[in-house]
Formats: sequence, structure tokens, C-alpha cells
Amino acid sequence: MKIVVIHGANLNFLGLREPDVYGSMSFDELKSRIDAHAPDVHQFQSNHEGEIVDIIQKCHLEGMEGIIINPGAYSHYSYAIHDAIKAVPCPVIEVHLSNIHAREDFRRKSVTAAACIGQISGFGADSYLLAIDQLLRRK
Amino acid sequence: MKIVVIHGANLNFLGLREPDVYGSMSFDELKSRIDAHAPDVHQFQSNHEGEIVDIIQKCHLEGMEGIIINPGAYSHYSYAIHDAIKAVPCPVIEVHLSNIHAREDFRRKSVTAAACIGQISGFGADSYLLAIDQLLRRK
Amino acid sequence: MKIVVIHGANLNFLGLREPDVYGSMSFDELKSRIDAHAPDVHQFQSNHEGEIVDIIQKCHLEGMEGIIINPGAYSHYSYAIHDAIKAVPCPVIEVHLSNIHAREDFRRKSVTAAACIGQISGFGADSYLLAIDQLLRRK
Amino acid sequence: MKIVVIHGANLNFLGLREPDVYGSMSFDELKSRIDAHAPDVHQFQSNHEGEIVDIIQKCHLEGMEGIIINPGAYSHYSYAIHDAIKAVPCPVIEVHLSNIHAREDFRRKSVTAAACIGQISGFGADSYLLAIDQLLRRK
Amino acid sequence: MKIVVIHGANLNFLGLREPDVYGSMSFDELKSRIDAHAPDVHQFQSNHEGEIVDIIQKCHLEGMEGIIINPGAYSHYSYAIHDAIKAVPCPVIEVHLSNIHAREDFRRKSVTAAACIGQISGFGADSYLLAIDQLLRRK
Amino acid sequence: MKIVVIHGANLNFLGLREPDVYGSMSFDELKSRIDAHAPDVHQFQSNHEGEIVDIIQKCHLEGMEGIIINPGAYSHYSYAIHDAIKAVPCPVIEVHLSNIHAREDFRRKSVTAAACIGQISGFGADSYLLAIDQLLRRK
Amino acid sequence: MKIVVIHGANLNFLGLREPDVYGSMSFDELKSRIDAHAPDVHQFQSNHEGEIVDIIQKCHLEGMEGIIINPGAYSHYSYAIHDAIKAVPCPVIEVHLSNIHAREDFRRKSVTAAACIGQISGFGADSYLLAIDQLLRRK
Amino acid sequence: MKIVVIHGANLNFLGLREPDVYGSMSFDELKSRIDAHAPDVHQFQSNHEGEIVDIIQKCHLEGMEGIIINPGAYSHYSYAIHDAIKAVPCPVIEVHLSNIHAREDFRRKSVTAAACIGQISGFGADSYLLAIDQLLRRK
Amino acid sequence: MKIVVIHGANLNFLGLREPDVYGSMSFDELKSRIDAHAPDVHQFQSNHEGEIVDIIQKCHLEGMEGIIINPGAYSHYSYAIHDAIKAVPCPVIEVHLSNIHAREDFRRKSVTAAACIGQISGFGADSYLLAIDQLLRRK
Amino acid sequence: MKIVVIHGANLNFLGLREPDVYGSMSFDELKSRIDAHAPDVHQFQSNHEGEIVDIIQKCHLEGMEGIIINPGAYSHYSYAIHDAIKAVPCPVIEVHLSNIHAREDFRRKSVTAAACIGQISGFGADSYLLAIDQLLRRK
Amino acid sequence: MKIVVIHGANLNFLGLREPDVYGSMSFDELKSRIDAHAPDVHQFQSNHEGEIVDIIQKCHLEGMEGIIINPGAYSHYSYAIHDAIKAVPCPVIEVHLSNIHAREDFRRKSVTAAACIGQISGFGADSYLLAIDQLLRRK
Amino acid sequence: MKIVVIHGANLNFLGLREPDVYGSMSFDELKSRIDAHAPDVHQFQSNHEGEIVDIIQKCHLEGMEGIIINPGAYSHYSYAIHDAIKAVPCPVIEVHLSNIHAREDFRRKSVTAAACIGQISGFGADSYLLAIDQLLRRK
Repeated sequence: MKIVVIHGANLNFLGLREPDVYGSMSFDELKSRIDAHAPDVHQFQSNHEGEIVDIIQKCHLEGMEGIIINPGAYSHYSYAIHDAIKAVPCPVIEVHLSNIHAREDFRRKSVTAAACIGQISGFGADSYLLAIDQLLRRK
Repeated sequence: MKIVVIHGANLNFLGLREPDVYGSMSFDELKSRIDAHAPDVHQFQSNHEGEIVDIIQKCHLEGMEGIIINPGAYSHYSYAIHDAIKAVPCPVIEVHLSNIHAREDFRRKSVTAAACIGQISGFGADSYLLAIDQLLRRK
Repeated sequence: MKIVVIHGANLNFLGLREPDVYGSMSFDELKSRIDAHAPDVHQFQSNHEGEIVDIIQKCHLEGMEGIIINPGAYSHYSYAIHDAIKAVPCPVIEVHLSNIHAREDFRRKSVTAAACIGQISGFGADSYLLAIDQLLRRK
Repeated sequence: MKIVVIHGANLNFLGLREPDVYGSMSFDELKSRIDAHAPDVHQFQSNHEGEIVDIIQKCHLEGMEGIIINPGAYSHYSYAIHDAIKAVPCPVIEVHLSNIHAREDFRRKSVTAAACIGQISGFGADSYLLAIDQLLRRK
Repeated sequence: MKIVVIHGANLNFLGLREPDVYGSMSFDELKSRIDAHAPDVHQFQSNHEGEIVDIIQKCHLEGMEGIIINPGAYSHYSYAIHDAIKAVPCPVIEVHLSNIHAREDFRRKSVTAAACIGQISGFGADSYLLAIDQLLRRK
Repeated sequence: MKIVVIHGANLNFLGLREPDVYGSMSFDELKSRIDAHAPDVHQFQSNHEGEIVDIIQKCHLEGMEGIIINPGAYSHYSYAIHDAIKAVPCPVIEVHLSNIHAREDFRRKSVTAAACIGQISGFGADSYLLAIDQLLRRK
Repeated sequence: MKIVVIHGANLNFLGLREPDVYGSMSFDELKSRIDAHAPDVHQFQSNHEGEIVDIIQKCHLEGMEGIIINPGAYSHYSYAIHDAIKAVPCPVIEVHLSNIHAREDFRRKSVTAAACIGQISGFGADSYLLAIDQLLRRK
Repeated sequence: MKIVVIHGANLNFLGLREPDVYGSMSFDELKSRIDAHAPDVHQFQSNHEGEIVDIIQKCHLEGMEGIIINPGAYSHYSYAIHDAIKAVPCPVIEVHLSNIHAREDFRRKSVTAAACIGQISGFGADSYLLAIDQLLRRK
Repeated sequence: MKIVVIHGANLNFLGLREPDVYGSMSFDELKSRIDAHAPDVHQFQSNHEGEIVDIIQKCHLEGMEGIIINPGAYSHYSYAIHDAIKAVPCPVIEVHLSNIHAREDFRRKSVTAAACIGQISGFGADSYLLAIDQLLRRK
Repeated sequence: MKIVVIHGANLNFLGLREPDVYGSMSFDELKSRIDAHAPDVHQFQSNHEGEIVDIIQKCHLEGMEGIIINPGAYSHYSYAIHDAIKAVPCPVIEVHLSNIHAREDFRRKSVTAAACIGQISGFGADSYLLAIDQLLRRK
Repeated sequence: MKIVVIHGANLNFLGLREPDVYGSMSFDELKSRIDAHAPDVHQFQSNHEGEIVDIIQKCHLEGMEGIIINPGAYSHYSYAIHDAIKAVPCPVIEVHLSNIHAREDFRRKSVTAAACIGQISGFGADSYLLAIDQLLRRK
Repeated sequence: MKIVVIHGANLNFLGLREPDVYGSMSFDELKSRIDAHAPDVHQFQSNHEGEIVDIIQKCHLEGMEGIIINPGAYSHYSYAIHDAIKAVPCPVIEVHLSNIHAREDFRRKSVTAAACIGQISGFGADSYLLAIDQLLRRK
């Protein structure tokens, strides 16, 4: 199964970024954990909203069968990413490292999750692994 | 690992209840799927908010090491369940069959999830299985 | 026709409870008036949200053909009862003794009525009788 | 008993108007059903807010003993009709064909119902018949 | 000075209408008091929002030099009357019998007063007389 | 193609009314421009919400194939006009002289546009001409 | 009749303060105009919320029969002044130089007017004179 | 004097539950402190909203002369308990261990306190003792 | 123990002020009751927000060990008093004569209580006595 | 006349994207229709908010005389694009394929339209053609 | 250049007041730092809203050429101070010790800053020094 | 000290862009003024939200010791930039040319300032110079 993981804004600063919230795991370690769990998964990172829209569209054009996305802060206001997810027919799962339902008010609502098939939030790197498992199980 | 699954309001009417939203799987089938995946897991169902609070407390007193809860509609207003979850030290994961982030306004906000370690929403019965996997992985 | 009347929170205190709003008729008198109007109707009362959910489900399982419900204060926040009503295929009518549209702000909105076929509000015990007449007329 | 039925905005387009919401019954059929149920009832229809205020006032001046009103969309914002209802001492009942509590947000609140003795909503033409029955029963 | 007084919705029911709020003075008595104070003033009453717009426009076309308006309930939502007042160059004063700032929430905000030169609220029939005095004083 | 243009509240005061917002073109000039562009188009003007509802209904009964409407201030609160537009099957286009999206808060939301096929806002008299062109192009 | 005029915050800067809103009349000129109209009226000015409360209380203790108050900006948030006005039995009229209903959002609501018998707003110094006339007329 | 203390949701987990907020005192210790202060006081605990309604009603039927209630999280949304308190004529005092006015937004508003004669909040177990003292003093 | 009672806005008008809400007890009687209960307590009254801030600060500088404050209407908007309370280390208790949770909307929220250790509301003069008892018990 | 059409987020996925809302026309067909209607018009597409800002600025620098923009989802939150439009002196018209006034809540408000001269919404590809016609007519 | 610094509510408690937010610097030290930086600057402190209004007015009357103000908590609700600032023609700069944009919700909005030429927030005592520098640079 | 200035959306159009708000100074002049004041400061400009995130991250990686940022319109909704600022340990100061607290509602709240150490708003190019001075003073 062809699966893509899209890491959104500031994910590349993992480890450096508010370690009390996001933990000390670096972005490279996150990618390695995903890679170890599912070696064939492609991974992209971008801090650009428009680029994330581009990648989602490209995933569809290149026949990807599942997308896992952590839009970072864009989750909370990017209707452009919401629309991009809605525009592709393959299943998209939103993941978050921290439990967004237990954080600041602006993080409790995800406008992008409304376009996905589901959301997994709060399990650190494991959120990604669970999403991969689910995409494979659904197949 | 001692794990409990708590099914909240109207879950026992699965299959009978709005099948276009919740699918045709019956509640017995849901329980069987969970049982097949993790035979040692205890399962309870209640339509009573207070009883769900009681069960959560009892889980703690009986040494349970993980709780998976689908509070049903109580997710959206039960601060009593929220407080019960906060009161127990073992990890609690909230699950939902449907993707609550894509439904009516009142279902998009979960007050109980704020007390859990994370939330998994949108994968039907698989939401429960993913939560079990995660509790076991965390151990 | 098999019809059930469900009296919700604090209805059993009728006559004792704020007589300037709800009148001096006791709960027994209310039940008697309903009984005199339609002797075959079953009547239940409960102050428990969960029990009301249970009763609604049981009505369906026992083949009831119509439900009349006055959820009392639960009308204004119980999405669990809302979901239970949505889950049963038989017609459900919400009734209120007082005109909820002319009272405190929190009573002007009924979340449970959204799951019913209709609402009758403001006619004292007659609200119930009108609902019974309507269920019979629909048949 | 002298009773008046006031049909408000767009009621005269019944049958033509959103038949999936309001059914295929024409306005003439609605009037006939009311007429068959209570031959002495007077019926008026107007799309004009001000005219509805005029009719309510005139009902009072001509000694009408009960008013049944379906203000149509005016229910949701006409404080002028609200004030007119408040100004007449005879009982006024608000009726709706559809269950307004289950529709768009703007239809869930009736500002005119706050001035009535009660509201009956959701039973098609039967809403009117129930209101007539109730006015006669009250007498 | 050519002055017009426009009485809006339900003013013609004065005396009949909620006497605890509006007093026992009849509409004829109100008109007589105004007439006694300023015999040349023209007075109109209408329950129709559109007619009030028409009258305001006609006042301008007929060279009226001042308008006193009590829009009644239309004060609280009629942007059409607001726009009509804005469209005429002569001074317009809004008056209210009762003190709208001390009543229900919906009456505390006047959208029509925003288009007037000022508002006088709370002095019964005297509100009109004060407005007449002010138009004459301004001249 | 049988097309009707409905001019709503205060449009007949064009040129007199806030010329810095609406320009110096008179209502007669507006009608002439429309007439010159599409001689067969019928034009009506009314300041009465109810009359606008009546006209919309009549357009349908007389077989009109397209309606262009500028409800004026009624755009922002008239659910009665909204319902009337919804009730007729022919295409209805809402037009505004000024760009309502750049004006006072209350003008930024149109409740009537939600019932139309589209809205054209901000081009003065040209808004009408564009709407006519579009109705003809659609045919 | 013993009448007091209380000038609130920043009234003493009249003429200096935003002359496009409040005009070029100085505070001394305002006081003189009031004095010329009603020589026996006492006048106080204070920028202190607490002092205004003190003055209102003192007016009552010294047997004043009427109070005219322009609280200035305190109108919009001072519940302390609101309570003071409520606590004195003599009639209190609120006045404003400018039409507060046509200004910034925060000025459109007066919490102090809710405790007065009425409000006069928009007539410059004449607002005070009208209020004096009304107190004398009421006597 | 016959007094009842009703402990609501999660009070039985005192000491186990968020000790940084609620302290280390156990529920048994709380009951003992109350018992030591007023040996004749009856104490109940329930996590069930409906049961709390039942107990309040029963207190009245059994002639209790005063009720002290800590509804726990139900304080913030249970209109059913609010209505039950309103329905009983004996004085009811709401107490809270922590100062709810200094906590999360949802805890700052108590819907049940509106039906009580007063509220005491923030003094740990002493909140109960103060309420008992006050009931005795009132007698 | 050195305790201060601070009476805020309009408390000095007790007995004169809305006796149906606040009772007929005069301010002198209130002070006497407090004095009789705890002769060493100092009492201050002020209608000035700034003076109340000054007094709170002075209490700290003079070594007071407990403050009881009834800010009156300032409770509902004075962040300056809130900040002053936060700035002093000794325990501060807010009291109210009436039950603010059962009154107008603006009185249901206290911004000053958030800075206190607790609040006692609804017991008339007894609210003060309970607060004194509590400060002494805490010692 | 030098005119530019800017297609915003996800427009390039037309035909693939929610065909029940946007129709089956592909992006290439949209561009061809515009090209056929006005061969000299330049067309750009970008999913990047910043790039759209860049293009608008560049249009101005290169002497473009009119801009037609469909910002896609950015319409609803991009104040950066709003500011860019405000910064260029040439006329800018906002267009939408679907009638945004009849869709989800978040799509009913356009923050970018407030900076344009007008908006055309709901006519599919024709929205663009109407905007081109209008720019040419204005010239 | 004649410059005044106005210290508002609770600034005189600096060092004593929430040192984790405001630091350990005392008010005397703050004044000394300002004095050392600009010896000719006059400094006032008051906890009284009305006095702050008085001082602002007096600054203008005495020919001050610049005002630096830290209104403390009054920043967030004092429209009286807002109006006073608006009434004086000399430049006024608002300063805050802490970064108000990163604190409690009520502190994130300053109603007084809207009347100033600018605001400097978050730099401790340096906020004042920067404001002085800027007033001197502007000269 | 290594300092970076980041100019956000539309800053490069300074002079061309709404000169009545932002003045006639061009972007090059702004950069020159900063350069003249602090020759070693690096300056970047971007209209791209993602690029601004990238730059902030890069500043950290390259050992910059202070960042001055004017995000332009992104200040008001970019949680991605907010998160980027939070992720870097060096001090970040937000600056604005105009006083955002005195402008449109959407500009009065800065979500990015919440992640900075402070904000300077309203002093034109001087806002930048003050921020540089402050970074140097802090060192």
C-alpha cells in the first residue's frame, strides 16, 4: 500500500520546540520511528500551507492510497488544507503528537479534521504508527 | 495488562441506531471484535452518566491499568465524567466510532477528552482496537 | 395502539413544585387525567437521565408504537436522550406543561425536540392529551 | 366559540413550496381540512407583517375568543407581531407545519411564541386541528 | 414649521396594550395631547413597516421640516426604516413611551435611532412633546 | 425570456439617498438603464416586505423565467423573502448597487442570498445588467 | 422644585474635547445655558465614579426632587452609578450631548439608563434643558 | 434541626482526586469533620444526577429543615438539580471545597446556586461547617 | 487576629436601597451586628474604586491578617480591585448580602472573587459573620 | 485593457474536487472558457497565500488595469490577501464558482471581498466572464 | 520637552505584587530608573480612575508636551480614561511592564491604547524608557 | 549582537500601500533607516507565512541573538508563526508601524505577540529602532 506522511508547520523543530509539551524526541528520530514501523512510507515536511496543499494534490495524482497528516498549527485555521483533503478520494487521517483537546482554546478545534476520515491525537510518535496500522487494516 | 472498555450512552443500540452514521454492526458484534482482539479486556455498557462515573472509580480501586471509554453523547457535556477521569491515575483513552470532528456542532467538542491522554475518532470498531494496541504498546 | 408516556425530571413533584408556574395539579392527578383520556397508555416517571434512555430503548424493543415524553429540565441539555429518541423508529412527541418559549433563556431551547416529530408546549395536562390524540390520528 | 386562524408568510404557496419539507398538500386543502374540522372558524392569509398585526388587533375588536397563528418566517424576528399578540387578551396558540426545532438554526427560535399561551409544532395540518381542539377544550 | 409625527406598530392599541407598561392613556388621548401641544402637527399611524418607509419618504417630498417617529417594535430590527430615515435630510427624532433601556434585552437596542439626530425615551406622551419642543427650538 | 426586476426598500429614493454611498443616479435613470439594456424586462419597486413576497409569488404564477432582486435592507433580516425565493423554481439572482461586503457589519450578511442561485454586489446599475446577461446566458 | 445636574467624566473639557463630536461650546457655556434656563438648578461635575455615587446619595439625603445626570463614559460600564440611581427614590433622567445610538459600539449601550426614568440623547446642551422641562412638567 | 448534607459527583474520591486542587483529606475524613461539628446531620453521596434529584425530593418528604449540597461538576450544567432545589421549600445552601470563581471557565458559573439561598465556596471542609452554622443560626 | 471589613459601593445606603432585595436593615445596623460579633474588627466604607484599592494596600502595610470585602457593584468589573487583592498576601474573603448567583446576568460573575480565597454569598449580614468565623478558624 | 485572473487554492483541482458542489468542468476547461471569452487575459493559479500576495503586487508593478480573483478558501481568513488588494489601485473583483452565501458558515463571510470593488458569486465559470465584462464596461 | 509619566492602579505596590509576573523591582526603584534616564520628567501615581482623568486634563492645561501612561488594570475597561486621552492634543504613549498580549484574556485588550499614538508592552521598566526616548525623538 | 529584522506581508509595498495609514515612506527608506541605526542588522522580507516560519527557524540555527518581527496581517491569525516564535529561545519583539489598537477589530488582537517578549506598536519606522535599542539594552 502506498502511504504518505505529511509533517506540517514546525514539526521539523521537534526536540527544540517546547520540550515540556512535545517531548525531547527530535524530528529525525520521529521520522526514523515511522520508517522502522513502515519502511515504504514516504515522508514530507513543510512549514508552508500552500506547499502542503500542493503535496496533498500530488499524492492523489501519483496514486497514493493513504495519507497521514499532522498539519501542526494549520489544523486550526487552514480551510485551504481542509479543501485539499476534501478534494482527494483516498483516506486521510489526521494525527497530533499532543492531545489537542487538553490544550489552549485555539488548539481544541481542528478545521482540517472535518475533511479526514478520522483523527488520532495525544500519543506522541505512536499517533503516526496507529494511523499507519489503521490504513493497512482498512485495506 | 488489566484493561477496561466502557461503552457509554446508546452504544448498546448499535446497528439499530442511525445505521447511515454508525453502520450496521450490532453492539454484540462490536464486543466480539474487541474480545477477539484482546480476550482479557473487560467490557461494560451503561446509559447512566452516574454509573459511568462509578465504573471509572471502581476501575481504579480494582487496579485496572488502562481504560478505553466511548462516553457517547456524554462526551459533549459531562463534566462529571471529565472529573472522574481526572481523578484516576491510570491512562484513559477516548474513542469514537464516527469522526466527531465532521458532524453536528455540538459533537465537535469533547469535554471528556480534555481529561484523557488522547482521543481516537472515526474508525468504527477499529477505534477501540487502536486504543487497546496503544495501551499495550505504552506498557 | 401501544403508547407510552415518559415523565422526566421533577415531574413527580407536580403540585409541590413552583405552583405559580406549573399549577396546583398533583402528579397523581396528571396521571389520572391521562389515564382517563387513554386507559391503555403506559406511564413511567424517572428523575434519571440514564433511566429515561433505558426506557426509550425498551419501548422500542417491546414494540411500542408511539412515545410521548416530557423530559423536564433534561430537554435543555441531554444529548443522550436526544440520541436515544433518534435511535428508535416509532414516532416520539415532546410535551411541556408550561410554554417553554416564554420562560428563562435556558428553557427556550430544547435539544431533545430536535429528535422528535414535533413538540406541544404550554397547555398543562392538555399537552399530553393533545399528543395522545395526535398519535392516534396518525395511525 | 369564535375562533380565527391566521396563516402568515408563504403559507399560500403550500404544495408549491419545498414539498420535501412541507409536503404536497396545497393551501386550499389545508383550509378545507380546517374547515371540515371546525366549520365556523374564520381563516385569513397574508404575506404582510403589518397586515398580520392589523388582523390580530381586529380579531380582538370583533370579539374573537381564540386565535391560532402560523406566522411563517415572521415567527423568527417579528417583534411587531409579538407585541400585537401580547396586546390582545384572548388566548393565542402558535402552530407550525414542520418541527421547527429540527430545522435551520434561525427557525429554532420563535420570538412570537413567547407572547402566546403555547406552541404546537411538527404535525402538518394536524397542528392546526390540535390547536382548535385545545381552544374548544379550554373554553 | 411643518412637523409630522409617525406612530408605528401597535401604538393604535394604546390603553388596550399591556397597561402596566404603557399606561391607561388611549391612542386618541395621545393624539389629542400632541394636538393640544402643537395643533399644526400631522399625525400618522401604521402597523406596516413598508408604509412607515413610504410615509417617511413622502414627508420629505412634501417639504416636511421635522419628523418625530415612534417605530414601536420596528425600532429593534427594521433596517428598512433606518435606511429611510438616513435618506431624508430633515431632522428626525425617535421617541418611546417607556424607557427602552430598562426593558427586555431585545428592546434595549434601537437600530433606527442610529439614523436619527437623537432619541427621547421613557416619558410617556411627554416624550412626543419634548421632541416637538426640540424641533421648534432648533429651527 | 420573461425576466422581472424587483427593487426593494428605499431603492425609489436613489439619488436622494446617501449619494456618497449610492451615487447620484436617480431611480428613474436606473430603470432606464435596465430598460435600455433589456427592453422586455418588467420592473417593480416596493418598500413593503410583504409586497415583495407577493410579487415573487406572482412572478412564478405568471410564468416568469428569471427574477433579479435587490431587496435593499430586507436582504439582512427578511426570512419571509428568503422563504418566498426558495418557494419558486425559476432562477433568482440577488444584486446590490454597493459592495455590501465592505460596509457596516449588519450589511455584510445577506439572508436572502442564501435562497438565490448567486449574488452580484458592488457595480452600481451594472450589477443589474450583469444579472440580466447571466439569466440570458443560462437559458 | 429642587433639581441637581450632575456632569460626569470629561464634561469639564467640553470645547477642548473632540469638537467634531461635541461641538465648540465650552463647559462654562453649557453651565450658563442651564443656569439661564433654570437658575435654581445646582450643578456638579466630577471625573470620579465614586464621587458621582456620593453626589447622587447626597442629593437624596438633602431632599433633592429631581436629578439630571450625564455620566459621560461611565454610562457604559458603571454598575456602581446604576446602583446608586436605583437606590434613590426621586426621578433621575440621563442625558447625552451626542446621539450615543449613532456612535461606537461601546457607547450604544447605557447601563446607567436602565436605572433612570428615561434618557434624552443627541441634542447638545438642549438635552439638559429638555430634561429640566420634563422634571418640572412631571411635578 | 433536621439537616442533610448531599455530596455530589466524585466527592467520594476526595484525597485520591487532584490533591493539588482538593487537598489530601479523604472523603471519610470530610464526613468525620462534618459529623464532629454537627452529629445529627445526615450525609449522602452519589455520582448520579438523578439520584441527587431523588434525595432532594425525599429530604422534603421526610421533613428535613435544611439541605447543604455540593453537586460537584453537576453544579455547572444540571438544570434537573436546579429544578429539584427550586421545588423544595426548605433552605438549601450550595458549598464548594475549592473557590470555583478562580478556576476553569466552566466552573465559574453555577446553575444550581441560582436555586439556593446562598453559596459558600473556597474553604475546604470548612465550607460545609459554615453552611451548617448558618442553617442553625437562621432557625 | 487583626481583621478588616471593607464595605464597597452603595453599602452605606443599606435600608434605603431596594429593600425588597437587600432588606430593611440599615448600614449602621449592619456595622453594629459585625461589631457585636467581633468587636476588634475595623470597618471601612467607600463608594470609590480607587479608595478601595488604597484601603486594601494599606491593610497590608499595617499588618492586617485578614480582609473581608463586599465590593458591591465593583465586584462585577473592577480588575483594579482584583489586582489589589492579588497583591496582598493575607487571606481575603468576598461576601455578598444577596445571592448574586440568582440575580441579573451582570451580577452572576465576580471578577474580584477570582483573587480571593473564597466567597460567601446570600446570607445578608450573616455573610460577614461567617467570613469572620472562617478567618478566625483558619488562624 | 490589461486584465489578470488569479485562481487561488485548490482551483487547479476543479473537476476532481467535490463535483456535486463545483461541477465536472476541469480547470483546463475553465481556463479555456475564460480564454475564449477574453483571449488577452493572463491567468495564474497558486495554492500559496504568499504567492497570491506576490502576484497581486506584481500585477500592479506591471501596469495591469484590472484583477479578477477567486482566492478559494483563502477568501475566508486571509487578511494578507485583503491587505494586498487594498494596496493596489486598480479595480479588483472577487468571483466564486458556487454561491458562498448558501454554503457552510465559514464560507459565508469573505474577508477579501471587503477590499475589492465588488463580488460575483454562484455562476460557475460564468462568474469569471461576468467580471471580465464588467471590467471592460467600466473602462 | 515637558513630559509626564502617570502610573496607574497598583503600580505603587510593585515588588510586593505578584513578583513572578512583575519582578522584584520596587516602585521607588522604577521611579529612580525613570528619573535617572530623564531627570526632568514628572511622575504621578494614583489608584483612582477619576484622579487619572484629572491628571491627564491638568497635564494639558499646564502645557505638557507628552504623556506616558501605564493605567494598570484600568487599561482594560476605563472608557473614562480613554476619553480623557482623546481630549488632549499632546502625544500619549501607553506602556506596560509585562507583555499584556501573553496574559489572561481580559488583559489582552486595552481600551485606553486606542486613544494613544502607540503602545509599548513587555519590557519591564525599559518600557517607560523606550517611551521617553520616542517622545524625545518625535520632537 | 546578532539581530535580524523580519518584515512580513505587504511591508514591501510600503509607500504604495494606503499612505494615509502607513505614510509615504517607501520600503527601501524603512530598510535604510534601520540600517543607519544599526548597520549590522540583517533584514528579510516575505509575503509567505511558511517562509517567515522558515526564517525564524533559520535565525535560531544560525545563532541569532535577537529577532524583530512585523508579521503584517499574519499577526492576526498565524498560529504557525506563533508556534515558530515559541520554538526559538532567543528574544523576539513584535513591532507595528501603525497603532493596531486603534484600527479595525481584526487588527486589535495579535496572536503572534503572545509568543514574543513584548510588542511595540504605533511609531512608524521608529517602532523598529526602539526594538533594536531594547535588544541591545537587554544584552
